[in-house]
Amino acid sequence: MMKMIQIILLTFALISYTSNANSSAKDFCVANLLLPTTPAGYPCKLPSLVTANDFVFSGFVAGNTENRFRLGVTTASVNNLPGLNGLGISAARIDVGFNGTVPMHLHPDASEISIMVEGQMIVGFITPTNLFVKTINAGDVFVFPQGLLHFQVNSGPGTAVSFSAFTSSDPSVQVLDELLFANNLSTAILQETTLLDFDQIKKLKAVFGGRG
Amino acid sequence: MMKMIQIILLTFALISYTSNANSSAKDFCVANLLLPTTPAGYPCKLPSLVTANDFVFSGFVAGNTENRFRLGVTTASVNNLPGLNGLGISAARIDVGFNGTVPMHLHPDASEISIMVEGQMIVGFITPTNLFVKTINAGDVFVFPQGLLHFQVNSGPGTAVSFSAFTSSDPSVQVLDELLFANNLSTAILQETTLLDFDQIKKLKAVFGGRG
Amino acid sequence: MMKMIQIILLTFALISYTSNANSSAKDFCVANLLLPTTPAGYPCKLPSLVTANDFVFSGFVAGNTENRFRLGVTTASVNNLPGLNGLGISAARIDVGFNGTVPMHLHPDASEISIMVEGQMIVGFITPTNLFVKTINAGDVFVFPQGLLHFQVNSGPGTAVSFSAFTSSDPSVQVLDELLFANNLSTAILQETTLLDFDQIKKLKAVFGGRG
Amino acid sequence: MMKMIQIILLTFALISYTSNANSSAKDFCVANLLLPTTPAGYPCKLPSLVTANDFVFSGFVAGNTENRFRLGVTTASVNNLPGLNGLGISAARIDVGFNGTVPMHLHPDASEISIMVEGQMIVGFITPTNLFVKTINAGDVFVFPQGLLHFQVNSGPGTAVSFSAFTSSDPSVQVLDELLFANNLSTAILQETTLLDFDQIKKLKAVFGGRG
Amino acid sequence: MMKMIQIILLTFALISYTSNANSSAKDFCVANLLLPTTPAGYPCKLPSLVTANDFVFSGFVAGNTENRFRLGVTTASVNNLPGLNGLGISAARIDVGFNGTVPMHLHPDASEISIMVEGQMIVGFITPTNLFVKTINAGDVFVFPQGLLHFQVNSGPGTAVSFSAFTSSDPSVQVLDELLFANNLSTAILQETTLLDFDQIKKLKAVFGGRG
Amino acid sequence: MMKMIQIILLTFALISYTSNANSSAKDFCVANLLLPTTPAGYPCKLPSLVTANDFVFSGFVAGNTENRFRLGVTTASVNNLPGLNGLGISAARIDVGFNGTVPMHLHPDASEISIMVEGQMIVGFITPTNLFVKTINAGDVFVFPQGLLHFQVNSGPGTAVSFSAFTSSDPSVQVLDELLFANNLSTAILQETTLLDFDQIKKLKAVFGGRG
Repeated sequence: MMKMIQIILLTFALISYTSNANSSAKDFCVANLLLPTTPAGYPCKLPSLVTANDFVFSGFVAGNTENRFRLGVTTASVNNLPGLNGLGISAARIDVGFNGTVPMHLHPDASEISIMVEGQMIVGFITPTNLFVKTINAGDVFVFPQGLLHFQVNSGPGTAVSFSAFTSSDPSVQVLDELLFANNLSTAILQETTLLDFDQIKKLKAVFGGRG
Repeated sequence: MMKMIQIILLTFALISYTSNANSSAKDFCVANLLLPTTPAGYPCKLPSLVTANDFVFSGFVAGNTENRFRLGVTTASVNNLPGLNGLGISAARIDVGFNGTVPMHLHPDASEISIMVEGQMIVGFITPTNLFVKTINAGDVFVFPQGLLHFQVNSGPGTAVSFSAFTSSDPSVQVLDELLFANNLSTAILQETTLLDFDQIKKLKAVFGGRG
Repeated sequence: MMKMIQIILLTFALISYTSNANSSAKDFCVANLLLPTTPAGYPCKLPSLVTANDFVFSGFVAGNTENRFRLGVTTASVNNLPGLNGLGISAARIDVGFNGTVPMHLHPDASEISIMVEGQMIVGFITPTNLFVKTINAGDVFVFPQGLLHFQVNSGPGTAVSFSAFTSSDPSVQVLDELLFANNLSTAILQETTLLDFDQIKKLKAVFGGRG
Repeated sequence: MMKMIQIILLTFALISYTSNANSSAKDFCVANLLLPTTPAGYPCKLPSLVTANDFVFSGFVAGNTENRFRLGVTTASVNNLPGLNGLGISAARIDVGFNGTVPMHLHPDASEISIMVEGQMIVGFITPTNLFVKTINAGDVFVFPQGLLHFQVNSGPGTAVSFSAFTSSDPSVQVLDELLFANNLSTAILQETTLLDFDQIKKLKAVFGGRG
Repeated sequence: MMKMIQIILLTFALISYTSNANSSAKDFCVANLLLPTTPAGYPCKLPSLVTANDFVFSGFVAGNTENRFRLGVTTASVNNLPGLNGLGISAARIDVGFNGTVPMHLHPDASEISIMVEGQMIVGFITPTNLFVKTINAGDVFVFPQGLLHFQVNSGPGTAVSFSAFTSSDPSVQVLDELLFANNLSTAILQETTLLDFDQIKKLKAVFGGRG
Repeated sequence: MMKMIQIILLTFALISYTSNANSSAKDFCVANLLLPTTPAGYPCKLPSLVTANDFVFSGFVAGNTENRFRLGVTTASVNNLPGLNGLGISAARIDVGFNGTVPMHLHPDASEISIMVEGQMIVGFITPTNLFVKTINAGDVFVFPQGLLHFQVNSGPGTAVSFSAFTSSDPSVQVLDELLFANNLSTAILQETTLLDFDQIKKLKAVFGGRG
């Protein structure tokens, strides 16, 4: 058994040494998505294995909008664009069908800059003391500061399209309805902590799949 | 007119130079709350004017719990404890009366460590894919990661008391009900982006003072 | 004279105190572009003066491409979108005419994520040991890590358009030719430190306006 | 041998891939304490293995004060509260018996906010040009900026209790006497670099276990 | 009075606007030492006023070693080299006479890399559980991690010279003897918190100028 | 097969647990260069295996200057001084022979402070709008802000020697000629993006080994 441990250790050291001999991670740190991530991002892929493809994502097209909110989101994050690792940036394409919406949501770990490409949207974010709302059109850029609750509503006659960039290589998207109504937090606690009515909660739990 | 500008400029330079001659801001940067803040905190008070009192706050006592949520919050932040400036930490005392609650809320700019001092609380936070809930008692410590929606419910037979520290010298406290129902965001947009019912929204707008 | 100084000081304190009494800068720190900037960004505008317009920029349209490189760049940075202050992000629209190019350049203070919107480009960046080049089309996203020399060449039959986001609210754009040939660095030193020929340097100094 | 290496590599890849398929580390990064730590904290535990218990520590009670300084310290850090990983915060409970003290010490990697809960203490910190000392009581909060030498002395008639939070998930506690007198740094060098007397050094080395 | 305030405000705005019109602070942020510093450093000097001299310090020569520790320290920090502002680096030249020493000290805000240029020194730093000591000579480089107590002793036959760089543009130098014995912290408290003897404390207070 | 996987996993856990039992990584995080690096640096070596040698590098002597630029560079980085890991600092010794030069280059990830030790150099850096050049001598210190193109030319009658420190524990050194002429970027693209002449490019590709 001890011998096996020694062999494994030696093996690991050999592999690592070889890799290290090739080079350290200067200039960039492409994610090795097979290793556990850290608070600063994924460990770096061996530089000798990095290719131009690690810096490209090719599916940045309109997402499917046939759903409740008529919302399609396509994301270019460290998960499909590993060259973003450690750089603190990523992007998303947002397509909102006629009468559709990006529901009330927030990104706890990222600010968002949103470039309006097509159509018209009412966008806004909320703080405890203020509401900031604007109607924006193609050629407008809007900012949502980190962690603030925000929304986008398609107010134009057709589809609305925007591109967003985020200050994280893998931002969390937290839709309020999913936070409140898609898990098994007891209805009693939800009532007490949100003052929403019992019936309202039950109704939306049914929509979003929550129990309790 | 030009002469006056010159005098003002000279004056400003003289004042500043004097201050600078005394010392630069090493070891600490006590907030000069009279000057405009920056993304990194307030400008530093002249070191020669700093006293031990800049590092103490003396009103860290139970807040008034005679309100809707039976919740009292007392905060020690850069605003009353200017020595916290630039250090990325602050504290709060939370008193929750019998049957009271800390309503669903979040801190977009801070993680929170909560020390249970007296009583019993059900605490929890929510992510898009998970719910983390625990009943905690005096002697327990709980963590709420940055930007996540969370709540505390007094589940004990008396008052519950906890102390919290935050990873910001002036954290934002965002109560969900206030974000949704205390401003003039139109009910129509709220309906579209939260799927809450018209009546529910009107009812809570009446409670929290929102219009629209 | 002393009296005047006192009045000015008092005035300044009063103005500041008033502003501070209104609120501290939570949730966001919109740039007060009239005050001197700091290593962390501009001081924050008085929250009571902030409006939704501070978070919008409305001129994000095609730039003029009638120039040497057939290149139009339109920027949404803290300078025209003060809500970006302290958030570490900004955006640019890049239009490259037929046969045009984004010349060899770098951003010492920002990584760049580039979303291809229209046309085709050959893009690439260079490290001391490697070259990473790709031909990208609409629907592709590419990354340029911070500080690395990079370029884009319109390789399609028409105009090429891309949107970029940067990890700085006011990134520096450094075109290599301008660094080398648009100032008065002596030709002798340029020769010694780049090994470029005397004639080549003189020729490009003439193009970019450099002397020496 | 080569075959075994291949199997090990494959195994590692498989395990990792599976884990990654489950999810990336958004919203939090609970420490996997079994893996080597990094300058940014521990690698993240597989999200599917995280439970509410990872965010609770339940032994935050009075430490044993039957020792030289009559000091009991109980810590809630990443080591027993792995949900703190990457969040830059932790807590400690400090109990100081009658006539007891928190000896002169510092935290090279953390600022400290101290909440006085019971009793009375004289607290202070020292800079090269200043001394900041205060007598604080229950309901007072005090700040010790990062890296500064500080102390607490029980000046009340009974036990003193305080809660501290730190700007690190695993702060280092460096008691001056232990730094000087608990290792084998030669007495000659200690004399030269502190100007303490030979006898004084020998006496305290005997107390704290130092040799040399 | 109101009129004057308006004039001052206008003046300030005009001056600032002009400066801003010239350029924002890209590429560097040279310290404007006349304005109050912030947690992130000094506000930036108007770019149009910056010259090459802002990036040079010319007095980096041997300091006077005719003192108690035979120690001369010359510093290149943001105070005399304003181009360092916001860059997080500075330098010092350390000259230690025969039999001299750099007494036990620490930098709460900076790590230090020390390049041995001439002579021989015994250098070391201390953690709660370990002592790291080395004899180094010209051509050796040593590291002192942030906030750790460390010392250098001239162990050679002549003068010892080293250059250090720090991870702060204005590091704090805290000599242990000055922290303990150069202020008016009461001898009683010093005894309790360090266990040093009354006579030892009085003796060193006499040397370093402390009272109490 | 499954059994083997289990054994490997168990082994790994055991090894790790043992290491963790010894201590976590406080006070410093010496690089374990055998493990893959991360965006924040290398994982930490087991504290029990760290010795004083991890904080020393002993080959900081003149590099060989018998080359094209008469330039010798010796580096003390995390690769040969693992105690630098996570500290954000490193050093280099630069020797420039008579008539030699440090060619035009940049560090995308580090600012540089340069201490002139012997001889005379013309040093400078370039921004899009300015050129900052100085002749410096022994006893002068110069700063090159992060990511800016810069150069040093030996302007004295003998060898020039300087020591530099960088704000990275492993800075990237990017010589412009190597970026442009040492890889296989096509001459056509180089022409389009730099406006350099075909012959000039071919000539320098021959010097630096580039193809295309």
